Amino acid sequence: MSDRPKRLSPEARQEALAVLAGWKLVEGREAISRRFVFRDFSEAFGWMSRVALLAEKMDHHPEWSNVYKTVEVTLATHDAGGLTELDIRMARAMDAMAG
Amino acid sequence: MSDRPKRLSPEARQEALAVLAGWKLVEGREAISRRFVFRDFSEAFGWMSRVALLAEKMDHHPEWSNVYKTVEVTLATHDAGGLTELDIRMARAMDAMAG
Repeated sequence: MSDRPKRLSPEARQEALAVLAGWKLVEGREAISRRFVFRDFSEAFGWMSRVALLAEKMDHHPEWSNVYKTVEVTLATHDAGGLTELDIRMARAMDAMAG
Repeated sequence: MSDRPKRLSPEARQEALAVLAGWKLVEGREAISRRFVFRDFSEAFGWMSRVALLAEKMDHHPEWSNVYKTVEVTLATHDAGGLTELDIRMARAMDAMAG
């Protein structure tokens, strides 16, 4: 395993969030979240499956919940006690896969 | 689409829950929930994928959240405003697939 990324500075965090449309900081916790809404369950779970493959490859896993066509995602890096570059990369990949 | 199942009577609900080890009634809501803990994310998401295929086939979808190797599931039948035979069948199938 390579070194885990370091926590982002407040400046880096703001900068990253500024270009991540739809993502917001979680209140009371150094994490970001976004709600994805798809057409139906098939589309939602299809997207989750693609994300799961990437998560396993990155060894960086989301916290997420799914109700039919909606997926709520929270990203944070537990090892680092906050947000890191891994979360930003995952958020960007999720956005890209949601199309 | 076939007719949707009717809400279970309180007696039928108790009877079904009595044989569903690990499942409990959700407080303040006519729904059942269970926490599944797997070895790792791969096993957890593998199980979710099998459940998703069944859910789509049954046209009956769980509410669930996943954090790494843990999956929290809530089952209810929205159309019926409570628990139906569909939820019991889904709970049994989830148990069986979790092995």
